[in-house]
Amino acid sequence: METTLQPPKKIIIDTDPGIDDAMAIFVALRSPEVEVIGLTTIYGNVYTTLATRNALHLLEVAGRTDIPVAEGSHVTITKGTKLRIADFVHGADGLGNQNFPPPEGKPIEQSAAAFLVQQANLYPGKVTVVALGPLTNIALAIQLDPAFAKIIGQIVVLGGAFAVNGNVNPAAEANIFGDPDAADIVFTSGADVLAVGINVTHQVVLTDTDRDKLAQSGGKFAHYLCKILDVYFSYHRDSYCMKGVYLHDPTALLAAVNPSLITYTEGIVRVQTIGITRGLTLFYNKQKRFAEVTEWLDKPSVKVAVTVDAPSVLKLVMERLTDS
Amino acid sequence: METTLQPPKKIIIDTDPGIDDAMAIFVALRSPEVEVIGLTTIYGNVYTTLATRNALHLLEVAGRTDIPVAEGSHVTITKGTKLRIADFVHGADGLGNQNFPPPEGKPIEQSAAAFLVQQANLYPGKVTVVALGPLTNIALAIQLDPAFAKIIGQIVVLGGAFAVNGNVNPAAEANIFGDPDAADIVFTSGADVLAVGINVTHQVVLTDTDRDKLAQSGGKFAHYLCKILDVYFSYHRDSYCMKGVYLHDPTALLAAVNPSLITYTEGIVRVQTIGITRGLTLFYNKQKRFAEVTEWLDKPSVKVAVTVDAPSVLKLVMERLTDS
Repeated sequence: METTLQPPKKIIIDTDPGIDDAMAIFVALRSPEVEVIGLTTIYGNVYTTLATRNALHLLEVAGRTDIPVAEGSHVTITKGTKLRIADFVHGADGLGNQNFPPPEGKPIEQSAAAFLVQQANLYPGKVTVVALGPLTNIALAIQLDPAFAKIIGQIVVLGGAFAVNGNVNPAAEANIFGDPDAADIVFTSGADVLAVGINVTHQVVLTDTDRDKLAQSGGKFAHYLCKILDVYFSYHRDSYCMKGVYLHDPTALLAAVNPSLITYTEGIVRVQTIGITRGLTLFYNKQKRFAEVTEWLDKPSVKVAVTVDAPSVLKLVMERLTDS
Repeated sequence: METTLQPPKKIIIDTDPGIDDAMAIFVALRSPEVEVIGLTTIYGNVYTTLATRNALHLLEVAGRTDIPVAEGSHVTITKGTKLRIADFVHGADGLGNQNFPPPEGKPIEQSAAAFLVQQANLYPGKVTVVALGPLTNIALAIQLDPAFAKIIGQIVVLGGAFAVNGNVNPAAEANIFGDPDAADIVFTSGADVLAVGINVTHQVVLTDTDRDKLAQSGGKFAHYLCKILDVYFSYHRDSYCMKGVYLHDPTALLAAVNPSLITYTEGIVRVQTIGITRGLTLFYNKQKRFAEVTEWLDKPSVKVAVTVDAPSVLKLVMERLTDS
């Protein structure tokens, strides 16, 4: 029996590296099922300028300077919002305070949004965006090209806290909190959106034992990551009393690589943009017919991840990072 | 072996009758474990004036005109909010469009809030308020007497939608949506609050078969309720495609009568008072230590019902309503 050869899925990773961003990027580069056709950068774990620098650096570490990096927005879609930068999670440099030398490469001239629109039009229906930070660039692409939402293949969003507490505050998850207005634009855009929230990514933990295995493996990526993981482990110990770290970004990336790793439900997601629950993702399951008109009515549905095959995700992460 | 005789628990029912309010009031009057020392009225299913009229009427039906009725607020605690009246659930008269004659009795001169404060001070730590409507009266009592939150025994709130969709819109449950500012005052007051949300009350359904049993029982209350239940069944058929009705108010009442019918968790509840998720109850489980100060920090904990012994609740409702 012959195996049908499928062309690898084209993906663009929108990223704010970020320790788990670095893991996700490396896993993607080691995944034959996907072809990384670009990185776009965004603030979140670091400011956008540093995210661009780190994205270029990570591609140089991987020997993949053929992949273009497009710099994204430096501000939220509604101007004037103070950025929330999670340097206390990832270190001041976003990569575990390792003081890596500056990259040699430069980002392309195009903005992240323009690059997203260009690639979506170049390969209609074939590009998957894996969005690992606040959704500003994706919302800007939607505003730039009214056809973007329909022409993009899928947008896999690492973001949201569905029926669980957030990680910025009890209501909000960090990526959505980073730009709630942008998130609401993306969720209601009509694109094929799959949201992978912390209700799912909190099920995927890399333990200190796993880290030891990475360190002993001798793989290039594993060796690099073990240097930067300390800060991330410290944060999880202090905030969650955990001897391990959540694999947020690699889980979202692998959900794009292999959709069978998760299950999802479908419904309408709106994002609260003001008040004490600013950044809350509110999923409507379409079970009840409401007497009054609601803000969810007539909005398009999205997919929201519900379960994840955590052992398989962890196994894939370990395999692909240690495969030298 | 002798049975230890416990004095019945004193309860005040804050109510907007309302078909399931009528059921809850009748169940309370038939429950030897509790002594109903007053009804206070509030808008919600009907306007407050009609709620008072219906409360007096129900006590006359029950032959319990010895129980005082104190009329509550006609407006939300933050003045100027348009009231949401659920006449499409309970009928224009709140009692299934049966055109009952007006009651002969009158409410007492005290306001609901003043009555609540007076009774709490009369029996410190011994009075349970079962709040079946928007929480305006309870919030006014807290504002009227700074000691109220500590001197009241318990406040059992029928309200909230914890980790599930609301019933007014995807975010909000009707009683909290009715006065979100009042609800936030009550949840953060430091009182012993038990919230019984629709995540719990949606587990307790009176089916059309149960209604037939009520009709055939010949009990006085059962007979009365079967007359008014049609409108309530129609609403559930149209909105939820159900051949049955949710027993919201009787479930909250019975949680006050017999706490072992439910299990609960403890944490901090804040209510969103603005925006598209106005009326949302956001429960913080105190698992994560957040890097930033949040609006939940340093607020007192409340109890939030998680599970209910639905068959026992239904059995109690049926027994007490058919016991003639």
